[in-house]
Amino acid sequence: MRWNDLGEENCPVARALSVVGDRWTLLILREAFRRVRRFEDFQSRLGVTRPVLAERLRKLVESGVLEKLPYQQRPLRHEYRLTEKGKALNSVLISLFAWGDSQMRAPDEPHYMRLRHTTCGHVMTPVVVCGECGEPMTPQTTEMVADLADEPARREAV
Amino acid sequence: MRWNDLGEENCPVARALSVVGDRWTLLILREAFRRVRRFEDFQSRLGVTRPVLAERLRKLVESGVLEKLPYQQRPLRHEYRLTEKGKALNSVLISLFAWGDSQMRAPDEPHYMRLRHTTCGHVMTPVVVCGECGEPMTPQTTEMVADLADEPARREAV
Repeated sequence: MRWNDLGEENCPVARALSVVGDRWTLLILREAFRRVRRFEDFQSRLGVTRPVLAERLRKLVESGVLEKLPYQQRPLRHEYRLTEKGKALNSVLISLFAWGDSQMRAPDEPHYMRLRHTTCGHVMTPVVVCGECGEPMTPQTTEMVADLADEPARREAV
Repeated sequence: MRWNDLGEENCPVARALSVVGDRWTLLILREAFRRVRRFEDFQSRLGVTRPVLAERLRKLVESGVLEKLPYQQRPLRHEYRLTEKGKALNSVLISLFAWGDSQMRAPDEPHYMRLRHTTCGHVMTPVVVCGECGEPMTPQTTEMVADLADEPARREAV
């Protein structure tokens, strides 16, 4: 399988990874959520080479996760902003943060960084819950199922 | 910055990506959550080459996400199982699934696959909520903050 095929796959995880299954891409997005918008700023914060950064930004614009907007006319300069599709990646970044913080830190090591929910003001640990019943999702209670309702044969039988 | 350095970074996202910031790794984990455990099964389901699969599995064992256990003695055969650290990645996979399903699907396209919460039985959309107040996290209400309490100078001042 080539990576370009992943976007055509029926599995939503594979489709997501066709856009964000890359370390630099996710680090660029981390910075974008921190309101970094300009090429030079991404570059200096991440220490990524200019060609790699340019290529990842181009792909993110192409896939509709970032939009490229002029912020200055003379000379013409652009900045990169998260689209709605990009903002929807917040939960992916939060989940990575939470896992990195809880599982990739030595027991005696400080947190360094925390997540804060500005609505309630708490430094907190995010939880993924079911959108129907509100209970936390665990591997034991999460199932990926084929959406049988979308199969014509099945629809006819119903 | 080299990728090996990412695990040493203070940012939890970067640390997480030092282990899971790779497409094949995340697809292997997707299969592991579907209870795939054997090399041959990962290989045939993913269509990944044997050397790439072997290398990714080795790294996942090394980082404590999977454990390699014998399931047969003559000849000796091993299988790969998610550890507790690995199971904690459930929320990352769920978030990728939800984003792929909501953002990477054409409006007229069927779902193909859905997430089901077995506790309540519903096909549902997962939500990332604050562990303190239970409200959904949005980019506007999520803040990454330096954990000042861990800075000795600050601690003395308090």
